[in-house]
Amino acid sequence: MSIVASYAALKGASTGDLRSLDVRAALQATIAASLEFTAAAEFVTLESKVPGKAYGMFAKEARTSRPINAALYRSDLTANELVKTIFGPIEEQDTLYLDQCLYTAAMSFPAACDLLKAGNQKSPGTFFEVFVAHLFASKFGVSPQTYVEVQSMGMQHRIPTDYIFELSSNRRIHLPIKISTRERVVQVWAHQKMLDGMMGAGRFRGILVCLAETNKQKEESVVEVCLPNQWAAYQMYIATMSRVYYLDPPIKYLSLRESYPHIQVWPLSKFLQESHNIPSAAWT
Amino acid sequence: MSIVASYAALKGASTGDLRSLDVRAALQATIAASLEFTAAAEFVTLESKVPGKAYGMFAKEARTSRPINAALYRSDLTANELVKTIFGPIEEQDTLYLDQCLYTAAMSFPAACDLLKAGNQKSPGTFFEVFVAHLFASKFGVSPQTYVEVQSMGMQHRIPTDYIFELSSNRRIHLPIKISTRERVVQVWAHQKMLDGMMGAGRFRGILVCLAETNKQKEESVVEVCLPNQWAAYQMYIATMSRVYYLDPPIKYLSLRESYPHIQVWPLSKFLQESHNIPSAAWT
Repeated sequence: MSIVASYAALKGASTGDLRSLDVRAALQATIAASLEFTAAAEFVTLESKVPGKAYGMFAKEARTSRPINAALYRSDLTANELVKTIFGPIEEQDTLYLDQCLYTAAMSFPAACDLLKAGNQKSPGTFFEVFVAHLFASKFGVSPQTYVEVQSMGMQHRIPTDYIFELSSNRRIHLPIKISTRERVVQVWAHQKMLDGMMGAGRFRGILVCLAETNKQKEESVVEVCLPNQWAAYQMYIATMSRVYYLDPPIKYLSLRESYPHIQVWPLSKFLQESHNIPSAAWT
Repeated sequence: MSIVASYAALKGASTGDLRSLDVRAALQATIAASLEFTAAAEFVTLESKVPGKAYGMFAKEARTSRPINAALYRSDLTANELVKTIFGPIEEQDTLYLDQCLYTAAMSFPAACDLLKAGNQKSPGTFFEVFVAHLFASKFGVSPQTYVEVQSMGMQHRIPTDYIFELSSNRRIHLPIKISTRERVVQVWAHQKMLDGMMGAGRFRGILVCLAETNKQKEESVVEVCLPNQWAAYQMYIATMSRVYYLDPPIKYLSLRESYPHIQVWPLSKFLQESHNIPSAAWT
């Protein structure tokens, strides 16, 4: 199937139950078509201004892709292998290998899109959202909703939200998903605060999933755009996000774990390793 | 002076004290050049889907402007008259006339920009921000800053903010300024919540100023994009905004005053009429 046809099938399947194997099949087909397409492109090394990380980009005719983390992107793996690893039992798997599989799957279609059509921001975002939402729905065995109902002394509103997973009567997960955050990230803490205010603090646990914070400067070098002091202030003064998982975690955000308010930023492999604990009241 | 030269002068002047008469002179020159430019364009009536409001747009060669509220835009007034009215004594002035002057001044440069260069979103936003910030700085007699310093048990951060006016030791104004809000507006309540959390609730009063919420559909009709239920939820569960002033106020937002949580949405003329009261502890 072509990239366009498989992505259309994915969009169609994602309007139904996000746990379904139709979604998984369409994801795998989209990843397969994307990997095949980018395999035919040139991989050009970029100058990395991010300490400890090497980046490249795909180039084809006049178009180039977003930065690709060279240590995480595994062009030697097939879509079938990626999907089998990510959605299979993970106990025996190496953490780095899990992160490579997650990163390669998540980056496949966005990188291909960049080569197909410049400035198409929406399709990569939708793909990434469906990929992550399907992952969470599969691991939790729960289909999410994207609204909450608020009742307060005669008022009743339905408020649109990011994905909400009801794991038990007192444990719901609020899951915003972003390709990158930039200055818009305060929305995540604001929505968490609203849920806390509506339903009671701690009833909805906030988990943010992001792809990367890389930025290509003048087509030649790669930087990461991070605002750790602002994240700390949001966590201190707006609301508590329980986890932030990254596919390509910036060191500056991983370091937020080390000092107050200890925001728990982790590679997404950590989710695979702890997903079975998340419904428990002991998980914080 | 040309539009480009006067706008460049305005940007230069706005990096200094926002109360200064240099800013006002550059604003007046930019408004004058913009009005002169749009006067040479055609004014085309648009189909309005907004009850009770008539809209048109400027058209020149292949380019068209954003929607212009026909009852608020006064092409018969000069930049000198607009600036004199807005920054002069307002006691004797009719409320509608004040709103017409404010709207015409605020819309002059954005409308001209639309005809000069499609897709230039940044210059209209900067102009509008400087116009409103200069208005507040002039009326308060205070120059704003755009950060707060946070000290908390050994941590010290400088957090960037929207405009902050220190009116007294216990009355500061937090002033976000937006051409339109859309889904990004939750940022405003989130920043207010952060200031409340850092410094104590009620110490920073939040005032949001917006131009309009109009949207041109397929170049032919005008709608207003409003989410009043979401605004009510933000006001109930995130933080309190003391005022929202609009240049072209949507009826759906003005109606928020009528029912709980009674968000105080007003035409910007209200600010001119009450600005002398805002420093007082009695103003809520």
